[in-house]
Amino acid sequence: MPAPSNTLKPETASVLASVSTATLSQQLRSRGLNSTYFDGLTPARPDLRMVGVARTLRYTALREDVFKQRGGGMNAQKRLIDTIGPGEVLVIEAREDRHAGTIGDILALRLKVRGGAGVVTDGAVRDDTAMRALDLPYYRGAVNAAVLGRRHVPMDSDLPITCAGVLVMPGDVIVGDSDGVILIPAALADEVAAAALQQEHEEQYISERVAAGESLEGLYPLGSEQRRRYEQWAKGRGASK
Amino acid sequence: MPAPSNTLKPETASVLASVSTATLSQQLRSRGLNSTYFDGLTPARPDLRMVGVARTLRYTALREDVFKQRGGGMNAQKRLIDTIGPGEVLVIEAREDRHAGTIGDILALRLKVRGGAGVVTDGAVRDDTAMRALDLPYYRGAVNAAVLGRRHVPMDSDLPITCAGVLVMPGDVIVGDSDGVILIPAALADEVAAAALQQEHEEQYISERVAAGESLEGLYPLGSEQRRRYEQWAKGRGASK
Amino acid sequence: MPAPSNTLKPETASVLASVSTATLSQQLRSRGLNSTYFDGLTPARPDLRMVGVARTLRYTALREDVFKQRGGGMNAQKRLIDTIGPGEVLVIEAREDRHAGTIGDILALRLKVRGGAGVVTDGAVRDDTAMRALDLPYYRGAVNAAVLGRRHVPMDSDLPITCAGVLVMPGDVIVGDSDGVILIPAALADEVAAAALQQEHEEQYISERVAAGESLEGLYPLGSEQRRRYEQWAKGRGASK
Amino acid sequence: MPAPSNTLKPETASVLASVSTATLSQQLRSRGLNSTYFDGLTPARPDLRMVGVARTLRYTALREDVFKQRGGGMNAQKRLIDTIGPGEVLVIEAREDRHAGTIGDILALRLKVRGGAGVVTDGAVRDDTAMRALDLPYYRGAVNAAVLGRRHVPMDSDLPITCAGVLVMPGDVIVGDSDGVILIPAALADEVAAAALQQEHEEQYISERVAAGESLEGLYPLGSEQRRRYEQWAKGRGASK
Amino acid sequence: MPAPSNTLKPETASVLASVSTATLSQQLRSRGLNSTYFDGLTPARPDLRMVGVARTLRYTALREDVFKQRGGGMNAQKRLIDTIGPGEVLVIEAREDRHAGTIGDILALRLKVRGGAGVVTDGAVRDDTAMRALDLPYYRGAVNAAVLGRRHVPMDSDLPITCAGVLVMPGDVIVGDSDGVILIPAALADEVAAAALQQEHEEQYISERVAAGESLEGLYPLGSEQRRRYEQWAKGRGASK
Amino acid sequence: MPAPSNTLKPETASVLASVSTATLSQQLRSRGLNSTYFDGLTPARPDLRMVGVARTLRYTALREDVFKQRGGGMNAQKRLIDTIGPGEVLVIEAREDRHAGTIGDILALRLKVRGGAGVVTDGAVRDDTAMRALDLPYYRGAVNAAVLGRRHVPMDSDLPITCAGVLVMPGDVIVGDSDGVILIPAALADEVAAAALQQEHEEQYISERVAAGESLEGLYPLGSEQRRRYEQWAKGRGASK
Repeated sequence: MPAPSNTLKPETASVLASVSTATLSQQLRSRGLNSTYFDGLTPARPDLRMVGVARTLRYTALREDVFKQRGGGMNAQKRLIDTIGPGEVLVIEAREDRHAGTIGDILALRLKVRGGAGVVTDGAVRDDTAMRALDLPYYRGAVNAAVLGRRHVPMDSDLPITCAGVLVMPGDVIVGDSDGVILIPAALADEVAAAALQQEHEEQYISERVAAGESLEGLYPLGSEQRRRYEQWAKGRGASK
Repeated sequence: MPAPSNTLKPETASVLASVSTATLSQQLRSRGLNSTYFDGLTPARPDLRMVGVARTLRYTALREDVFKQRGGGMNAQKRLIDTIGPGEVLVIEAREDRHAGTIGDILALRLKVRGGAGVVTDGAVRDDTAMRALDLPYYRGAVNAAVLGRRHVPMDSDLPITCAGVLVMPGDVIVGDSDGVILIPAALADEVAAAALQQEHEEQYISERVAAGESLEGLYPLGSEQRRRYEQWAKGRGASK
Repeated sequence: MPAPSNTLKPETASVLASVSTATLSQQLRSRGLNSTYFDGLTPARPDLRMVGVARTLRYTALREDVFKQRGGGMNAQKRLIDTIGPGEVLVIEAREDRHAGTIGDILALRLKVRGGAGVVTDGAVRDDTAMRALDLPYYRGAVNAAVLGRRHVPMDSDLPITCAGVLVMPGDVIVGDSDGVILIPAALADEVAAAALQQEHEEQYISERVAAGESLEGLYPLGSEQRRRYEQWAKGRGASK
Repeated sequence: MPAPSNTLKPETASVLASVSTATLSQQLRSRGLNSTYFDGLTPARPDLRMVGVARTLRYTALREDVFKQRGGGMNAQKRLIDTIGPGEVLVIEAREDRHAGTIGDILALRLKVRGGAGVVTDGAVRDDTAMRALDLPYYRGAVNAAVLGRRHVPMDSDLPITCAGVLVMPGDVIVGDSDGVILIPAALADEVAAAALQQEHEEQYISERVAAGESLEGLYPLGSEQRRRYEQWAKGRGASK
Repeated sequence: MPAPSNTLKPETASVLASVSTATLSQQLRSRGLNSTYFDGLTPARPDLRMVGVARTLRYTALREDVFKQRGGGMNAQKRLIDTIGPGEVLVIEAREDRHAGTIGDILALRLKVRGGAGVVTDGAVRDDTAMRALDLPYYRGAVNAAVLGRRHVPMDSDLPITCAGVLVMPGDVIVGDSDGVILIPAALADEVAAAALQQEHEEQYISERVAAGESLEGLYPLGSEQRRRYEQWAKGRGASK
Repeated sequence: MPAPSNTLKPETASVLASVSTATLSQQLRSRGLNSTYFDGLTPARPDLRMVGVARTLRYTALREDVFKQRGGGMNAQKRLIDTIGPGEVLVIEAREDRHAGTIGDILALRLKVRGGAGVVTDGAVRDDTAMRALDLPYYRGAVNAAVLGRRHVPMDSDLPITCAGVLVMPGDVIVGDSDGVILIPAALADEVAAAALQQEHEEQYISERVAAGESLEGLYPLGSEQRRRYEQWAKGRGASK
């Protein structure tokens, strides 16, 4: 398959980098999408935000004869990483098998040099300590020193995959924060970003009222009276945030 | 059910805040209680101690028709949190399902404003980063951005529940430290607190002897000769603790 | 069984303390050994390196009548710890059952006082906070306040065991870093250490080239042209590391 | 809570006993209900159909002190079974813990004598061989000889519960066949039964055409042309079912 | 270790072959033993009863270098089976790893020829269909065609082991029926057999009364009035069973 | 991808239908292939043998927006089944998710009408009772009434997939018996079939000697003396099999 073209607008990316994955999850659910959060992955660099477009890599289970043909040298993994473009996130399907590494520090460095925005894998990472030093956000299922050939064959790329329970189509938007990673279908990125910003604005108001001692009733979610007050509060803050 | 009255004595709470969950576990086992430690939860704020009385909240599995009736607005979760009193710990049964959030930062803030002592959930937490900023101890099975309606219906409160493998009766005492959370049946709180204090005193002596190079034999647990020495040591320290 | 004699050479230990478990894993795999990394354990003290020789301890499942005979007093656990020698690593088989502790701070202190090099357990640790204060590297499956009698009988020592999926023979070499723990069969320690050092040297060259923007093709793994350049680079650095 | 009144119409029960759980699942999904099949249970008597109305029983995790008060004698389990009425199905929440029995042959006999329609438990069953001799349909997670006090406290009854991942409200309709068990919300029973009958009629036509060698295209699901033919076929069979 | 001498009395064996594992479980629990049922195993020949004395075999995780030394030829598995005596049950610890066989039809035939009473393994069995033809009771975690070297090293025998969560000491009594397998410590065999017989007698009376429509109250367990009636019933049946 | 051409020779297929999966597993392992048995699947029709060539079907995780585009009508599943040829086995990757069906009786009938040799799925099957009536061998992870849209999107076909832990390339040979299913790489089919036949011949001799009371030593595996005797035995039986 051809690599997806990166159509994420810079201003959308910028908004997505400012809102939380929790907020995005709620916006996606309100649009009927319940399976967009990557369950069970841990941010290796919770201090860094990640926003980018998915490039996908698929590992199958190990079979010794097939590994001999496809495991070594310029395998599917290396070929894909050598073509990663600016703002792209490498997403790896490893069948949630955490008994072997799926990427290490040298390949992650190559991805970063090419402008890649981050890595998401539902398998393990080797050289985790070295990778954490790269200033690259990534999310992984575990750390494991074993090389990929213990469990995996790097099979193909730029196909739909399942990673950590989420169906990822090449070109989808991937957003990560210190709480985890979430997917936004490419077609919804602008709309979801705008709605998320609005939601966070409302929640800031709600938090202030809760901090002031008000009850949840009619406040969260906003009832009609509180919504009126929120609008005044928003107006009072000018352009809001 | 009516909310349990908070009968934990301040002096008992104070002792419980000074001893470790490991020590409490041993005291409970010596009284025939083997299932009081909440398995598999992680402290979000290991720097904070938690001592309080259990208020319970029960989530069942999702069913779309029932969620419509009970999931939104002032559901069982919000009603309970709006009645949390000082020194109470919210304990949530989420069937160890970590694929959706069970509480987020706004509700946690409401609980804190009302004087709540902490939160324990065997499901996941949304907005974990924001919740960690609240100076409220809490323990959770995972972090997950998905809203509770993905997996749960908030069903009822102030009933016996099972959380992380522990049967919690409303009114039980809940203690958390940097190693995890443990339950003490309300009726045993004073006795267990006193015995735990005594045990830690003995273990301080044992640690000093081990640090000085003595063998474990006759020392841990204290044999009769070492007990005699311990008692002298204890006397020598005056009232000690 | 007699305790294994510690035959790890100091210079080998010193090399092993300088290379990563990821590198060691690759060297072991190239020698046909695929099951040497302890899956699923977490370093409690990622700031400390661990190198030592395995002393093994085996826990079986709890049975109340057998626990009465073998669980208390100077049980197999305490007898073994009282004989730990300098540079030895205590490795515990707990059947990956994380619902009870397998060691706590007092016994860990005893091990440290005797010169022990660290602890590896596929069960849980009690008093984790206190143990972390000891300046002793250890790796565990979880933290759990429950005492071992909840799930385990300490049965015997210095036998082959399975810990975290790895078969450990008494006397094997155990190496831990911030990414996890790995086993090297005693007979391979010198050879693997030397080869690992060489590999890390090559990978330093490769990383530099990748950082400079070169493609992975022919570079990782080193093709003949790049190997020639690597050798010049290595010469240029003199004795290199 | 009062026991639910059994409002399942005999003619609806009769239809439900003639259609498969697979068909019912599809009808429920088309009404937005995705979580009604009890995952992971096995029919002990696949030769018997089961249709009835849910009476619910809840087990919590074991705690020794609470078990002493609530485990023995006429506990919640026995009290409920002594009130089971004709056409009722006992549904047990055992937290999918299969390490202890949740019901045995004597209590199942009592239920049968009272006219109960069957049993569903996501825990284990004791005396499975004896229970299978009772001519009573039941579905269980496993067989286990251990008594319930090993893991459970029988807590309360006629409350909403979660069994095998399904939220069961007292009074819901429970249907079992040789493939498993499914729940129908009481309010939907008549409508779903009628639609399921219609669906099976269509599928009989489709099966005949497939057996005759026709392609799936336009046939499954029925396209407009095939639907026309189906209607003729249906007419040709008279009132058919 | 020397093989345990088989001290099970024939009359005790005969009683144990007539009572259910469910009854035995209850008798063991009333003596404080809660972990004697082998969880999660399936009887391959539910039509055959099994009673015998445990001979134990331990498999560790695979390590390629150790397998070369201990896996082939007359390994620990074959050496043990060649010494199995009449009335002995082979019990295998395979760490509940079901991804490889732990015994096949030829070795099972050898065991049977030597008078062995059955096999219990918490791993898988190869050649299950052929083994089922041998008229030998056995219980296994799964069926798997893979040979043991895929996952296991046969390590040693006649040591305490953990099988399916149960600590087995060589010489313990092992009883299997169509519901599963249970262990009785050798020292308790006579006492537990007698008590189990008595319990089944009482339960026969209770079942008859339940079948006749009596309530559970005062009947199960027997209250004082019902106990009086039971005794008359028992007298009326003469020597009873 | 184009469908693989079916190159399995009839005489090879015939041999493969006569040897056990256990024997094939051993032959594959002796050729360095350790991951060819489909773990954890159950034969629905243990009375039928299955031999055929793999056609592969891949399901990804559910995403509601993608399901709308690809789930209904002539989806990837139906398109593939409509092209199944004689002697082909449908192999489905369902990520071992057993919470929804992956095929039901109508599609299985279509496959059978087209000459398909069987079905292997690591997900669940709907309408299992009806499917068992079709005289078609199939192997599945579970039975589940839920339709595939609850968990899966049928994505593509005739690609490499992972099913039950086994990497399946389109065109590989799939063999099933009453013990389970195994894969043979297409290139090895003739050689493995011949060697398996020879192995079973030897094992028949070994079984006869074991039945006659001989020790395992030197017999299993055949030592030089026993091999000599085996060859005489084989000669005595003429061409034997």
